[in-house]
Amino acid sequence: MTFPVSLDDALMARDRIAPYLMPTALRNYRELDDAVGNGIHVLVKHENHQPINSFKIRNALSAMSALPAEHRARGIVGATRGNHGLGLAHAGAVLGIPVTVVVPFGNNPDKNSGMHALGARLIESGNDYDTAVLEADRLCRDEGLTLIHSTNNRDVLAGAATMTLEILDQAGELDSMVFAVGGGSQATGAISMLSVLRPDVRVYGVQAEGASACYESWKAGSPVSRRAPNTIADGIATGDTYEMTFPTLRDGLEGFVLVSDNDVMDAMRILMKHTHNLVEPAGGAGLAGLLKLREELTGQTVCIVISGSNIDTPTLKRVLS
Amino acid sequence: MTFPVSLDDALMARDRIAPYLMPTALRNYRELDDAVGNGIHVLVKHENHQPINSFKIRNALSAMSALPAEHRARGIVGATRGNHGLGLAHAGAVLGIPVTVVVPFGNNPDKNSGMHALGARLIESGNDYDTAVLEADRLCRDEGLTLIHSTNNRDVLAGAATMTLEILDQAGELDSMVFAVGGGSQATGAISMLSVLRPDVRVYGVQAEGASACYESWKAGSPVSRRAPNTIADGIATGDTYEMTFPTLRDGLEGFVLVSDNDVMDAMRILMKHTHNLVEPAGGAGLAGLLKLREELTGQTVCIVISGSNIDTPTLKRVLS
Repeated sequence: MTFPVSLDDALMARDRIAPYLMPTALRNYRELDDAVGNGIHVLVKHENHQPINSFKIRNALSAMSALPAEHRARGIVGATRGNHGLGLAHAGAVLGIPVTVVVPFGNNPDKNSGMHALGARLIESGNDYDTAVLEADRLCRDEGLTLIHSTNNRDVLAGAATMTLEILDQAGELDSMVFAVGGGSQATGAISMLSVLRPDVRVYGVQAEGASACYESWKAGSPVSRRAPNTIADGIATGDTYEMTFPTLRDGLEGFVLVSDNDVMDAMRILMKHTHNLVEPAGGAGLAGLLKLREELTGQTVCIVISGSNIDTPTLKRVLS
Repeated sequence: MTFPVSLDDALMARDRIAPYLMPTALRNYRELDDAVGNGIHVLVKHENHQPINSFKIRNALSAMSALPAEHRARGIVGATRGNHGLGLAHAGAVLGIPVTVVVPFGNNPDKNSGMHALGARLIESGNDYDTAVLEADRLCRDEGLTLIHSTNNRDVLAGAATMTLEILDQAGELDSMVFAVGGGSQATGAISMLSVLRPDVRVYGVQAEGASACYESWKAGSPVSRRAPNTIADGIATGDTYEMTFPTLRDGLEGFVLVSDNDVMDAMRILMKHTHNLVEPAGGAGLAGLLKLREELTGQTVCIVISGSNIDTPTLKRVLS
């Protein structure tokens, strides 16, 4: 199996980001266990408590704190529609690194104003993510910026892997972990760490029915052609696989399930009711997947992640109604 | 001025509860600053990230961890309608102390099931809080339980004071703090700590128009007769002053404002939009008060507390609509 991030990579990332992030809580909620049923003991990792309300701050801080001084001075650029850009912007503010974020036209205005408020230079370019990536590439050439890819970057993946290190420090028993898969940094980080530290723990993936490229590719054993994503879970609305994560996901995931937008919204309501935390759609996907897997996971201790809480009010109202 | 809790009390409480609670984040949100205006720099203390989603866990853990072994073995009792009971139940589970919570008939079923899920014995008695208190007193006499009052208990107040110690460790500049006042433990703890550590920092109180006993008493200079509270902010829906906090609030609060339920709901929406955290009504009262005080606090660095996020779905829908 291929592991794009080693234990040493993750331990070094943990040291680099430790000055900026407190550990997030790992909690069990008896009423959530009852709602899930089948004797499953659910551990909830509260990455929604992070700065920028998303685990992506781990990835951004890890990647940007690893840059040599001359790269820091020139600044970094990322193409993003959401939490990756918020992570870069926040990390830039904390580390004193100029940050440029390229977003497609028509991007969520709340996300844009959030990145701007954190001090990032915001450039709108093109009508989709791919065109934004081209513009980011151009800025690297013309302005000497360093590209921080949301997934295909070893230090980004090492940042995501620190979450699993933290969970292993906090959890007593642990049988399985269920991760929502967008680019796949969380699951890839987990598989890489568990292969060394806890090879008995199984990892499952979840994607939205409307953004199932990685799931389809996992089933096929190789990347299948992309389709335009369409799901409420914008944080995992990827239309493609990524070269640094797909081989690990293909070989390392014990199982992979698809969930509908209704499944995601049900899971969000359950999490909000029983944990009293705000949950963005991608943050509900893990529980939605766990509910699909509940027969297979009967009697186990299973970790899920509230990966973020960056939800706008209209979407929240839609979920609650 | 009277200080019911000393710095030593709070430092000892901090040591006692440290094994069970991580520090909570203190954050600034540029977009929240912009929404508040007047050049006010707002520091948000995220007590909603605590176990039980409320600062009350500090109070309960502090009080229960201070009990001698024989009191622990017999168990404790509290009369409550909400977060105090959740705090006692959680602390009991963590410390291995039997917990009985007396609630009036018709109490919020979500709160009741939450306390039950944490392992507390739940007794319904009487139609209001006062009758529940009488039943708790009876249980102390008949079963040898120890009463943990939600406010009139020095170790409870020392627990609340640990929040101010933590804020002072985390904040750089700090000019003022604005606290929602129910029993008044947060504000009393803050006034007591600041008198020793930062006498330059001013403390303001906020109450709901529909539960204004402490405000009216502060204005009068002595406790005024109670009225039945009626506000959406159930966490601060107290109808009376408390002997261990009122003298400190009377002499120590720089100012005190009332906010309407609409003010509270506006503040909740602002906090949810710009911090992406779930907020219970009492948790929005601090910002509502800050907005009332914005002329007086122009240009200052001001700390408010999201004191909790225990809101049920119907109330959340009402706030969002």
